[in-house]
Amino acid sequence: MRIGVLGTGMVGKAIASRLVEVGHEVRLGSRTSDNENLLNWVEENGESASGGTFADAAAFGTVVVNATRGIISLDVLEAAGEENLAGKTIMDVANPLVITSEVEPPSLGILNDDSLGERIQRRFPTARVVKTLNTMNCDIMVNPKVLSGHHNVFVSGNDKAAKDEVASLLGQFGWGEDTIFDLGDITTARGPEMFVALYSRMFLKIRHLHFNISVVWDPNVEPLLPEGV
Amino acid sequence: MRIGVLGTGMVGKAIASRLVEVGHEVRLGSRTSDNENLLNWVEENGESASGGTFADAAAFGTVVVNATRGIISLDVLEAAGEENLAGKTIMDVANPLVITSEVEPPSLGILNDDSLGERIQRRFPTARVVKTLNTMNCDIMVNPKVLSGHHNVFVSGNDKAAKDEVASLLGQFGWGEDTIFDLGDITTARGPEMFVALYSRMFLKIRHLHFNISVVWDPNVEPLLPEGV
Repeated sequence: MRIGVLGTGMVGKAIASRLVEVGHEVRLGSRTSDNENLLNWVEENGESASGGTFADAAAFGTVVVNATRGIISLDVLEAAGEENLAGKTIMDVANPLVITSEVEPPSLGILNDDSLGERIQRRFPTARVVKTLNTMNCDIMVNPKVLSGHHNVFVSGNDKAAKDEVASLLGQFGWGEDTIFDLGDITTARGPEMFVALYSRMFLKIRHLHFNISVVWDPNVEPLLPEGV
Repeated sequence: MRIGVLGTGMVGKAIASRLVEVGHEVRLGSRTSDNENLLNWVEENGESASGGTFADAAAFGTVVVNATRGIISLDVLEAAGEENLAGKTIMDVANPLVITSEVEPPSLGILNDDSLGERIQRRFPTARVVKTLNTMNCDIMVNPKVLSGHHNVFVSGNDKAAKDEVASLLGQFGWGEDTIFDLGDITTARGPEMFVALYSRMFLKIRHLHFNISVVWDPNVEPLLPEGV
């Protein structure tokens, strides 16, 4: 598959490298196509790796990964170009963090009755946005088995086929079927995005980033709700 | 121990009954001391159970549990009386939910750079607020072993002795020491309170309330931060 990854930070590069590793052709996109960080990544990742502008990467991919800082993601996607995103699956892994201090944990710039995932979906209505992977460190994102035991990744999105496509990529990263928790439509992205408030405090106690959460439930309890609510 | 529980909803009654069960004297507090719900609870829970107004219950307890709806908790604590809360541990299990629709999941009335736990602490500065138990259904709160496997409860608070006192009550409910995750000071209550956005969506998929999360981490990774940050 051809995949465009937007964002050359730690997360973007981790996802892009892993996608190359599992057999995809990946174009990493940056604001400018000639920056050293991008050129180095391309050089280190072999023949299936290429680089370009945000627009180049988005045009290249049949799936586009948003791995930019959440607070600038809408601008980046704008630069990527509506025509290059039309009809495509956007795997959105960003969190709309507002970092105002080095000592205080970040707050969120979008939350409560909205989310970054929803904003992207509203701005690019023909794209099929799937929020996922935004609740853990990038080492765990792309290689969940570095952390032993059962733990979960969430997916949120309006389009079943797009979620299946994303689930298939997650499977290639090592996420077992029983670890992928489909929360529902794109409005459910609020939950994983707001989870960052808990995550950032857990980090300060655990003091490293190799952790995640596992959803634990009793399979024998009678449902209180009908299926498919 | 003498414990005052504020709130006669499902959560308040579940906690109050369980506290009686594990050997405490409990006074359940309501807006009025003669309402049927309260009188029934007293009658059903034996000699260690009593009822009264919010002020009666707060005055009675050496520990006071806030199990009211979060959006009215500050008013309830005001009614309970500053003098009845002074110097006491307040175990705050409430979430500041704003419910505007029967179909939409609730939003939060306090969040991001503040939390209900913090507001209570600011309003009652000599009380020792400990946020806990607000991340799961009341069946799990008071009897965590109904759910098999490892899963966690969070505590947040400024006062170490108050957190120890709460941890001891949690232990009596059945929370093992390795399941009690101390997040830090009362500002960390933002995390568990904002977790409700994820919790409410997990519920719609799991379709019953016998679930929780477990924090999973690798004990062998080198810390990135010094201890006690």
